[in-house]
Amino acid sequence: MAPIKNGRHLFNEIPVGYPIPGKTTIYDENQTIDLDTVPLNGGILVKALSFSIDPYMRGRMRPATVESYVSAFTIGEPLGNNGVGVVLRSENSSFKPGDHVWAYFPFQEYIVQTDLTNVKILENKEKLPWSTYVGAAGMPGQTAYLGWKAYSKAKKGETVFVTTGAGPVGSIVAQLAKLAGLKVIASAGSDEKVEFMKKIGVDVAFNYKTTSTVKVLEEHGPIDIYWDNVGGETLEAALDAATNFARFIECGMISQYNQTSPYGVKVGIFPSLLLRHNILNSSLQRVQNLMNIIAKRLSIHGLLIFDHMTPENAKEFYDTVPAMIAKGDIVFLEDKKYGLDQVGEAILDVQSGKNHGKSVIVVAEE
Amino acid sequence: MAPIKNGRHLFNEIPVGYPIPGKTTIYDENQTIDLDTVPLNGGILVKALSFSIDPYMRGRMRPATVESYVSAFTIGEPLGNNGVGVVLRSENSSFKPGDHVWAYFPFQEYIVQTDLTNVKILENKEKLPWSTYVGAAGMPGQTAYLGWKAYSKAKKGETVFVTTGAGPVGSIVAQLAKLAGLKVIASAGSDEKVEFMKKIGVDVAFNYKTTSTVKVLEEHGPIDIYWDNVGGETLEAALDAATNFARFIECGMISQYNQTSPYGVKVGIFPSLLLRHNILNSSLQRVQNLMNIIAKRLSIHGLLIFDHMTPENAKEFYDTVPAMIAKGDIVFLEDKKYGLDQVGEAILDVQSGKNHGKSVIVVAEE
Repeated sequence: MAPIKNGRHLFNEIPVGYPIPGKTTIYDENQTIDLDTVPLNGGILVKALSFSIDPYMRGRMRPATVESYVSAFTIGEPLGNNGVGVVLRSENSSFKPGDHVWAYFPFQEYIVQTDLTNVKILENKEKLPWSTYVGAAGMPGQTAYLGWKAYSKAKKGETVFVTTGAGPVGSIVAQLAKLAGLKVIASAGSDEKVEFMKKIGVDVAFNYKTTSTVKVLEEHGPIDIYWDNVGGETLEAALDAATNFARFIECGMISQYNQTSPYGVKVGIFPSLLLRHNILNSSLQRVQNLMNIIAKRLSIHGLLIFDHMTPENAKEFYDTVPAMIAKGDIVFLEDKKYGLDQVGEAILDVQSGKNHGKSVIVVAEE
Repeated sequence: MAPIKNGRHLFNEIPVGYPIPGKTTIYDENQTIDLDTVPLNGGILVKALSFSIDPYMRGRMRPATVESYVSAFTIGEPLGNNGVGVVLRSENSSFKPGDHVWAYFPFQEYIVQTDLTNVKILENKEKLPWSTYVGAAGMPGQTAYLGWKAYSKAKKGETVFVTTGAGPVGSIVAQLAKLAGLKVIASAGSDEKVEFMKKIGVDVAFNYKTTSTVKVLEEHGPIDIYWDNVGGETLEAALDAATNFARFIECGMISQYNQTSPYGVKVGIFPSLLLRHNILNSSLQRVQNLMNIIAKRLSIHGLLIFDHMTPENAKEFYDTVPAMIAKGDIVFLEDKKYGLDQVGEAILDVQSGKNHGKSVIVVAEE
């Protein structure tokens, strides 16, 4: 067979503020691949089906010299993230053509994968659509399920506040919390998302753009658990609305990812400040700041899912969550875009909150 | 016997900024007491020996309507805190004249105590000076010992950064850390305090007023444990210098207690900010902010000692720490002032860091 186009989506330029499709990242069709003859060097040839687009990808669009928990994207090279593909050829006895695999892949139509350490064969006994494995049954689902398990210490009757409650992580957290008998307060950035949150059982669903988070938490709080995907002022409001011994799960701070100057969460407390507030507004007797960590004896945990994907936890996750999805205990939305040329738009949507549901790039249906 | 003066130190006025001796609080000699005939109503009559002056007292100098973890002082009434006294008379069979007792007492020379629930008889087998029981063998010691036990997860060879390392809590934390085989970095606000920290075995002792905390942590970090007594910019520096999975013990934020506007710990991270910093200063590639909680998977715990004084923990503390003090494994400094009229000065010293060692008001020696 003659070489065919191998479309790729490349990192082109470090953004200032929001990433710009076609500038920050670009779609490229210059590479070709001969599927029959491309050398595999003991690896596998994978045809990409679905790629995940996630908020954290913004943090990788930085100079390579800046250290962080995950490596920077390389300018001129493909972006990459978790994806699902189908094996076309294999030189490794553990993989055979037709197997569906989940791994971190570069954003291109066809991938030669030689490091097979973290390539997982998906059994998919439940016959879920393959894109599910980059969403509710993929990293967002793992984040929600294993983060909740590790840090929530949830007790029936408690109240949780979940941010980005219509998103791929937040919506699953909200559903797990309901299944555990908690009252769920959840926020999102559109009325459409609020409707979805109500559908999945959220007790107090609100649009933070039109309703004050502080007021909602005053009315429906206090909160025993805070699932933070946004940071900034919302984190401050949560510190304020927390009960004694509340647990904060810090999963993301998307309100800050595209800011050119960061928001300052106030550290102080204390009489002089309070007095000043009392003079200004005698009803403002709350203290919105980090001193709440001590006064309320909070426990705050940073969550990155890869720490929690031990073999035992991974097994529990795949034994549990796909079945819950198949049964309807966990429902979710997908925001699908078709084709690798759509990656830039999908990334911007996720950063600006325009996506409605898990953002997925569908490269091919099968 | 005729009635005698019962000197008291009263809360007089809510301060703005630092408390002012003679204005915020005042010494009062108008009350008298007849030690022979004052009714005890089933309680005990205590002669005060030593009172503790602690940083947290500043937080109680607020309007009574402002809620916090500990009640506000009442204007016109005595201040109060932990103290040691000797029983003069008793109408309760568990207490006899001559017993030395530890409890929360109002700041007055003689106290009729009817609620005996939290009054502890001090055995003092080690014959420590009684003032020790408001310091290293009192609340500061309990805070250091039980807070370290609960949250440090210390492992030999790790590095801890202790703020107020010459203070009554910090100096004990530093010594416990050394005993556990850790490298100890500790800060204080004077060269004299630095000398004391070196004496108790601190590996890297520095004066934060003349040496940059950021630079010390860059050179001698990273840090696995942060014991925070100060908050503000120091907390920010610690977030920056933390290792992955570092533990933060939030015990106090004294840098903020007397500020009229609170310090903002930056929440943002991320490329646009970093880029801007890189443009300004290419060596500044660190990120000082709360996003570190996620990126480094930090665990942050608010510590108030009274949560940890379970009967088991109290027993362990009193079985262990006084003996360590007697043996010389824990050494400490006291900053004694004599007489209840000195309370205002002592409080201001503690708030401004002028005290050198545990601040104690000695009312009587025996």
